[in-house]
Amino acid sequence: VDVGFVGLGGMGSAMASRLIAAGHRVLVWNRSQDAVDKLRAAGAEAVKNPLDAFQADVALTMLASDEIIEDVIVKPGVLKSARPGLIHLVTATISVDYAKTLETIHKEAGVAYVGAPVLGRPDVAAKGELNILAAGNADDIAWVKPVLDAIGRKTWVVGTEPHLANVAKLAANFAIVSAIETMAEAFAFCERQDVAPETIAEILTGTLFAAPAYKTYSAAILERKYEAGFKLALGLKDVRLMLAASEKAGAPLPIASIVRDNFVDAIAHGEGDKDWSAVARVAFRRAALAKD
Amino acid sequence: VDVGFVGLGGMGSAMASRLIAAGHRVLVWNRSQDAVDKLRAAGAEAVKNPLDAFQADVALTMLASDEIIEDVIVKPGVLKSARPGLIHLVTATISVDYAKTLETIHKEAGVAYVGAPVLGRPDVAAKGELNILAAGNADDIAWVKPVLDAIGRKTWVVGTEPHLANVAKLAANFAIVSAIETMAEAFAFCERQDVAPETIAEILTGTLFAAPAYKTYSAAILERKYEAGFKLALGLKDVRLMLAASEKAGAPLPIASIVRDNFVDAIAHGEGDKDWSAVARVAFRRAALAKD
Amino acid sequence: VDVGFVGLGGMGSAMASRLIAAGHRVLVWNRSQDAVDKLRAAGAEAVKNPLDAFQADVALTMLASDEIIEDVIVKPGVLKSARPGLIHLVTATISVDYAKTLETIHKEAGVAYVGAPVLGRPDVAAKGELNILAAGNADDIAWVKPVLDAIGRKTWVVGTEPHLANVAKLAANFAIVSAIETMAEAFAFCERQDVAPETIAEILTGTLFAAPAYKTYSAAILERKYEAGFKLALGLKDVRLMLAASEKAGAPLPIASIVRDNFVDAIAHGEGDKDWSAVARVAFRRAALAKD
Amino acid sequence: VDVGFVGLGGMGSAMASRLIAAGHRVLVWNRSQDAVDKLRAAGAEAVKNPLDAFQADVALTMLASDEIIEDVIVKPGVLKSARPGLIHLVTATISVDYAKTLETIHKEAGVAYVGAPVLGRPDVAAKGELNILAAGNADDIAWVKPVLDAIGRKTWVVGTEPHLANVAKLAANFAIVSAIETMAEAFAFCERQDVAPETIAEILTGTLFAAPAYKTYSAAILERKYEAGFKLALGLKDVRLMLAASEKAGAPLPIASIVRDNFVDAIAHGEGDKDWSAVARVAFRRAALAKD
Repeated sequence: VDVGFVGLGGMGSAMASRLIAAGHRVLVWNRSQDAVDKLRAAGAEAVKNPLDAFQADVALTMLASDEIIEDVIVKPGVLKSARPGLIHLVTATISVDYAKTLETIHKEAGVAYVGAPVLGRPDVAAKGELNILAAGNADDIAWVKPVLDAIGRKTWVVGTEPHLANVAKLAANFAIVSAIETMAEAFAFCERQDVAPETIAEILTGTLFAAPAYKTYSAAILERKYEAGFKLALGLKDVRLMLAASEKAGAPLPIASIVRDNFVDAIAHGEGDKDWSAVARVAFRRAALAKD
Repeated sequence: VDVGFVGLGGMGSAMASRLIAAGHRVLVWNRSQDAVDKLRAAGAEAVKNPLDAFQADVALTMLASDEIIEDVIVKPGVLKSARPGLIHLVTATISVDYAKTLETIHKEAGVAYVGAPVLGRPDVAAKGELNILAAGNADDIAWVKPVLDAIGRKTWVVGTEPHLANVAKLAANFAIVSAIETMAEAFAFCERQDVAPETIAEILTGTLFAAPAYKTYSAAILERKYEAGFKLALGLKDVRLMLAASEKAGAPLPIASIVRDNFVDAIAHGEGDKDWSAVARVAFRRAALAKD
Repeated sequence: VDVGFVGLGGMGSAMASRLIAAGHRVLVWNRSQDAVDKLRAAGAEAVKNPLDAFQADVALTMLASDEIIEDVIVKPGVLKSARPGLIHLVTATISVDYAKTLETIHKEAGVAYVGAPVLGRPDVAAKGELNILAAGNADDIAWVKPVLDAIGRKTWVVGTEPHLANVAKLAANFAIVSAIETMAEAFAFCERQDVAPETIAEILTGTLFAAPAYKTYSAAILERKYEAGFKLALGLKDVRLMLAASEKAGAPLPIASIVRDNFVDAIAHGEGDKDWSAVARVAFRRAALAKD
Repeated sequence: VDVGFVGLGGMGSAMASRLIAAGHRVLVWNRSQDAVDKLRAAGAEAVKNPLDAFQADVALTMLASDEIIEDVIVKPGVLKSARPGLIHLVTATISVDYAKTLETIHKEAGVAYVGAPVLGRPDVAAKGELNILAAGNADDIAWVKPVLDAIGRKTWVVGTEPHLANVAKLAANFAIVSAIETMAEAFAFCERQDVAPETIAEILTGTLFAAPAYKTYSAAILERKYEAGFKLALGLKDVRLMLAASEKAGAPLPIASIVRDNFVDAIAHGEGDKDWSAVARVAFRRAALAKD
């Protein structure tokens, strides 16, 4: 399958590499050139604009926000001039509302649209072990299966309307930030009472919480390794998308509200460029536990 | 090892059965007689008061609250007349403050005290697969190892002061109620947006949240099987203990505060006798999702 | 002073009437015609588009949101063709971010811009007793004083940059929704314990809380008079603006987060068209107090 | 009327002074002697134990907590040996639960019990301008009117069962801490956006929030005058009583939960001995606004 690939940040580059390794022809475009050069060295072909990437069988976009998709794909009319029959895979975390807008825009342009946000960070993407949450026409999803299989360990089909994949993605991210906040509060609670956070982390991840989310993030928090896998300031964007969807949907999300306030607190303290697990510092700070 | 066993509720009975099955001599006492009779049929010996149970090598108490331990063990002077050399295992979820009081009382009475609250519900206890959080003198913990091994799959040593086990236990229960609340909010969020809760539950427990806490409680919530494994009203007691410890310790617990308010809401709606996972109904109710 | 007036909803119509009564020449425009007709009967002159309203000495716009100002004033280029020397009074509750954008747009168009959001509902506006929060160039504010005096009991100058008036307005609205939520929780707390909400309301408003916000909203809640003075769904918009500003500003607003979730709950229960004080029903509902 | 007065802290001393000034015979007892000496100088008679104070017509106790009342009045059997016909005025902020217990104890002892917690701080008490929330038998309340009139500007009758006065008192204190928290969040929100907290405070207290609670506490926060009128650590006790009552009553109190966490945060930062308005520092700290 020929794949046009637009958006080569940390996640995009890792995913594109997997596609090349799986033997697909990959046509890449990115706003800045560095990432393009690296992928060409790995076997990709550079194209000179997003529209050229949309002349393949499948176009995969990994663009960071609603606004960037609007600017790079929609406004320049890329969809209207896409190769007939092309399937567009939108893998970024976008708002549910904008995903619905994209449904309309694709329908009008006659382009197939599959929502395919992914769970996992760049290191997971590099190993091809992402979990993909896909929604769209069943035949379309079946057709892009080789592409999805190259980048993910498993594809979870959420429904037939593309925006449903974004609902699921926001719910999953909500569970993650809630787990981070839970660990942060629990660790501060323990530390103030002379139980080492390491001890409670070992117990939780050795018993009822023996799950990747708890293992990954308890390690990050305990080692204070807050180099950005996923930047806190971007994480706040995701929390904002959850809250916006919650509002439209009519479903309160009290834990997301707590997390939002803590992200705001963290950013006010200059931690916006750290990994989003650094929001844990808020719980430590509030318990007057000085942390470097 | 001869074990005196005081407190034969659902958890206590299951644990005592395991001790009998492991070949220990077990001397049981309980406030009401039914549970005693069942265990006698399984091989236990009934004793006529708690003091007699404290003439064994080890006394294990599984009593539901600070107040009951005070009334059944402390006030009647059981500790002062315990067999010299006896080790007292306190397995219930009690307050950190009261655990500290018990440290003093045991020291004065010259009785060894090991804090040993357990993670797991009656069905887990019946299989001897509890996780035991133990704290106390290392030699004492080593000495009671055969007893702990008979009831648990693993003993996690938290520290040398018994009350530290209760700190860890409250932290673990905090993580559990937070996970329940998280799933409840996420499920309501999804259902209001036409993603089935079953779908998001399958994704979470198949990926980043592939852990017993999420599997057990997502199943309970989705099947609306709220028969009490652990009663919601008792769960509120545990949340209250977390908040009391948080206050003394100087560590805010915002998620526990949310959960507290939801437990209050659930009890106001007549759900106090259901399993504590029924607190999920609050999130559904707030999202105007009618649930039987 | 000749005043162009754009936006004749409940608030706008009341304010325009006051200007007419004060002897100003008032040129009105509104999207729908009914309101225009009523004001013509009262002495206003109708103009055929917003641009004509911007040929007066002062243009006062009372438009409901950022988007409507953008559509009605900015995009059609009204500012660029405004009468030289005109001062534009923006009285609606808009986002802090958009107010900053308007600062730039006005500067580029060479039009003076005064931020002048108001505190008060239509009945207060009809009596000319609004409180006006004004920010902008001091001379401009001085010049429009006769206009402000005609619609308000007092003008509070917040600063020299127009958007600061919006910061203050959001802070004031935050205090109001917090007071509503506080009363709702307190009333439910009392009612569940056999103290009539009327009793505690009388005590609060007779002692430490003898203030208009508490008197107005306790009456609304207790009489269940939830006819919309200010629609709950619009109130959620204001809460959203507070949270958006809080995020940009780096100041957590935990009470606004609670209120947000309660507004979402209320709207999910079909209360979006009621007055925003109807959010009190959430606290009653959560305490299982059935209210018609 | 002869009044026995037990408990001469800041509030008690001020109230007793008012009774003396009003011409009542006042028999005082206090745990420490200093306060007694001062009141003797003002005209009180010292008695040698609480029981002697209960030989007057009315006994007024201003003791700081459930536990102290239990230790000083109930356990020593003071009620059983009180002068027949005496009316006991309990003016402190105690738990609703303990007030119910006191109802039973008084009934058994044949002593009339009027719940009469007060709103106001020592400076207000010194001027005799407290607001008194009274509950009990109507004849008893009528009979003690001269006593209440000497210490308060007004008595608000809440109901016929004494504990109802405590419900109302906790609701009023809830409104106060909510107002403090609201101002703290609003001030931090404004300051981060270059609107001076003084400006928004002036607007609020000059318009919709022109009430003592907002005037008193905005001044305290803005002047950073956190000398203890009412200690933060004691304030946390009151918040705990609210939450305990909320739990028993079945009425969630989300704002009280936020305030609780902030009080815990403040105490962890060494602010327990400051005035409870110092909880405002938490909002400033979270917004990274350094405050001396």
